[in-house]
Amino acid sequence: MRYFICFSYFGKHYHGWQKQPNAITVQEVLEDALSKILGKTIDVMGAGRTDAGVHAKQMYAHFDFTEIEDTHNLVFRLNAFLPKDIAVENVFQVADEAHARFDAVSRTYEYWIVQKKNPFYAQQAYLVKYPLAIDKMNEAAKLLLDCKDFECFSKSNTDVNTFLCDIKEAHWEYVNDVLVFKITADRFLRNMVRAIVGTLLEVGLGKMDLGTVKAILKSKDRRNAGASAPAKGLYLTKVLYPQNIVKTHG
Amino acid sequence: MRYFICFSYFGKHYHGWQKQPNAITVQEVLEDALSKILGKTIDVMGAGRTDAGVHAKQMYAHFDFTEIEDTHNLVFRLNAFLPKDIAVENVFQVADEAHARFDAVSRTYEYWIVQKKNPFYAQQAYLVKYPLAIDKMNEAAKLLLDCKDFECFSKSNTDVNTFLCDIKEAHWEYVNDVLVFKITADRFLRNMVRAIVGTLLEVGLGKMDLGTVKAILKSKDRRNAGASAPAKGLYLTKVLYPQNIVKTHG
Repeated sequence: MRYFICFSYFGKHYHGWQKQPNAITVQEVLEDALSKILGKTIDVMGAGRTDAGVHAKQMYAHFDFTEIEDTHNLVFRLNAFLPKDIAVENVFQVADEAHARFDAVSRTYEYWIVQKKNPFYAQQAYLVKYPLAIDKMNEAAKLLLDCKDFECFSKSNTDVNTFLCDIKEAHWEYVNDVLVFKITADRFLRNMVRAIVGTLLEVGLGKMDLGTVKAILKSKDRRNAGASAPAKGLYLTKVLYPQNIVKTHG
Repeated sequence: MRYFICFSYFGKHYHGWQKQPNAITVQEVLEDALSKILGKTIDVMGAGRTDAGVHAKQMYAHFDFTEIEDTHNLVFRLNAFLPKDIAVENVFQVADEAHARFDAVSRTYEYWIVQKKNPFYAQQAYLVKYPLAIDKMNEAAKLLLDCKDFECFSKSNTDVNTFLCDIKEAHWEYVNDVLVFKITADRFLRNMVRAIVGTLLEVGLGKMDLGTVKAILKSKDRRNAGASAPAKGLYLTKVLYPQNIVKTHG
């Protein structure tokens, strides 16, 4: 039977989601916890990959196992076993063909910026001390909604077949002391959100105008865009699935 | 001339505010930064003491120095010099007799509780998984407003002359995912807020009734009250001074 697991993590101490040799990743720690508790080697397939240091407030993965009688108890045991920086929200059975990566309809990311030194956001937001023209940054964000090909914001050594993404929302707003960039799309390319944020920050700092952003999007060349914003400000906040893949949600 | 410095800190890596041998404290780190930048040994007097691991969102101290021409620049240099977990909000001249500790009219603390595992509050809130009767906890909090003598919540080996405190507000409320206890008084005894929180949690868990809380307050004996809640959930959030002690506020 197939199960979805919904969880969150504080990314600082992990080399991202995806398992790799010689570095601790969230996938490895999660698989280890599931395998120990269920008494069988469990492989999980994540909804996507997050880079080293990136956080997730809501992330999904799927795994296969025989019938789990008490998913509530499994969640309890997982949370007791996992370190403080990974928390499981729930585990629920899905249709056998449901796929955490391919069935995800959209992903939402947030990028958090603070404008003055704040001890409580030192590991959770990027400090930009200079004044930012938020209106201009929102105008530039709107340009993303009309764009389809995002090769200009993609890592050059990538293995994807297409650079097409459908951006559904992209805007900046203050939430208390934090300037939050929220962006939703059907899919994202590797490093894409941080490259977008780095570019929009150049606009906010007055170093780049909207015409230049348009030219960057057209150029399809990563070298033209702004520097990638630091990982610690980035959060995967929502992964959306169609209603019908969920069998029982407990 | 006398100056007030307003600052905040994330308490995890400090053995509290007050200087002591063989342990790093916020006072020591702040004095070191001021002394290095101003080129003279600077002693600061804090508005109060916070224990090891306790955070401060707003804390004040005073120090003496010759005229500082550009306090804005001093703040900038202090923030560049200080570690990430201490931030200076501002520095401003006050009347020569102004005193950060004795002139403070009130202090406000908050205690943060989360009710399920959350990687983003692992170092910043206390995790209480069991259901809490918030109404009962608020009824018990109200009893504090009528009380004057708080010896029952004071460390036994204390050097204070009086246990009298005037509690101005004390209540629990949810702020998004966090259950926040807010308490304001003219002064607090050592460990008092954490002892109060520990006691009110017993009420919320159904282990103690309001009659017992009344009896504890009357008893003036710390052994009767609940266990002290962990330091990581506690924040000093506001220190209030009379308007007239501020000469220039830069």
